[in-house]
Amino acid sequence: MPRKLHITELGRMDQESFRKSDKQPLVLVLDQLRSAYNTGSIFRTADAFRLEKLFLCGFTPAPPHKEISKTALGADQSVKWEHCEHTTDAIRQLKEQGYYIVAAEHTSASIPLQSFAWPEQPTALVVGNEVFGIQQEVIELCDACVEIPQFGTKHSLNVAVSAGIILWEYTRRRLPEIAV
Amino acid sequence: MPRKLHITELGRMDQESFRKSDKQPLVLVLDQLRSAYNTGSIFRTADAFRLEKLFLCGFTPAPPHKEISKTALGADQSVKWEHCEHTTDAIRQLKEQGYYIVAAEHTSASIPLQSFAWPEQPTALVVGNEVFGIQQEVIELCDACVEIPQFGTKHSLNVAVSAGIILWEYTRRRLPEIAV
Repeated sequence: MPRKLHITELGRMDQESFRKSDKQPLVLVLDQLRSAYNTGSIFRTADAFRLEKLFLCGFTPAPPHKEISKTALGADQSVKWEHCEHTTDAIRQLKEQGYYIVAAEHTSASIPLQSFAWPEQPTALVVGNEVFGIQQEVIELCDACVEIPQFGTKHSLNVAVSAGIILWEYTRRRLPEIAV
Repeated sequence: MPRKLHITELGRMDQESFRKSDKQPLVLVLDQLRSAYNTGSIFRTADAFRLEKLFLCGFTPAPPHKEISKTALGADQSVKWEHCEHTTDAIRQLKEQGYYIVAAEHTSASIPLQSFAWPEQPTALVVGNEVFGIQQEVIELCDACVEIPQFGTKHSLNVAVSAGIILWEYTRRRLPEIAV
């Protein structure tokens, strides 16, 4: 009979080992997120898929923050992050460092997630505000746009769910390369 | 230059068309979720991936509910749902109707998501409480357990994020069959 596993049986690393570990060559840029709940949830996903770093831009909530801690459950301690006043500055800095910039947004040029060819080079994924999405001036700095196919009535998925799906798809394709 | 698309340009269906549309042969069972925020977010994902139905079990919040409406953004009107007092009753009912039951849980028998062979028959995916996961008595009624590979410090992902990732993986593999 299947038995639920305790955290100690899952082989998770401690925070010190996490900080020293090789990361996936992927950073996530949060463009003006409103919700600390979404931000905390994204910290948790960034921990699970071992991302390099989060860029918390504009009014995106940043640690230390009670609601982020509540939803990140400690991942705000393991995952590296930086606050940037303007999202465009973060993007320009990443481009100078050789990052390929991908916007998660419904645009006239978006490629469906299942068909998207992830580049070999380090990549930054940008996700946008819960209501307004990614700012147009930010989209104009991106190298590509990706979207999750949807078959219902609503405009989009929750931003933490969207980020989770795209990060899983990125990770899934790199699974043979990731040291477990 | 990529231009953000308005909801009217995304070809989304109205609620009446959604109700009449062919669904994916998949239902989602929420086993004692605490958060109306997570429940609302899951409604939105169920709309996007056109699921048959949600089963809201035990103390899982159910519509009409202000916080569900706020996060579901109307998906609580499009997606069919039913409340069940006991999750085990919902599972037994689904099994009698021929559903294959899959638990999203870290167990001694869990199969990694990327390797999981989804059955041809109608399927029910079960997700569990934010803190306690799926109840052991519910796991014992399931036909299989699936888990999302994780490479960080934390036990698990947020439940709405986990549901989103697993529903995307299910949908991605069926994309050629889904009428857009």
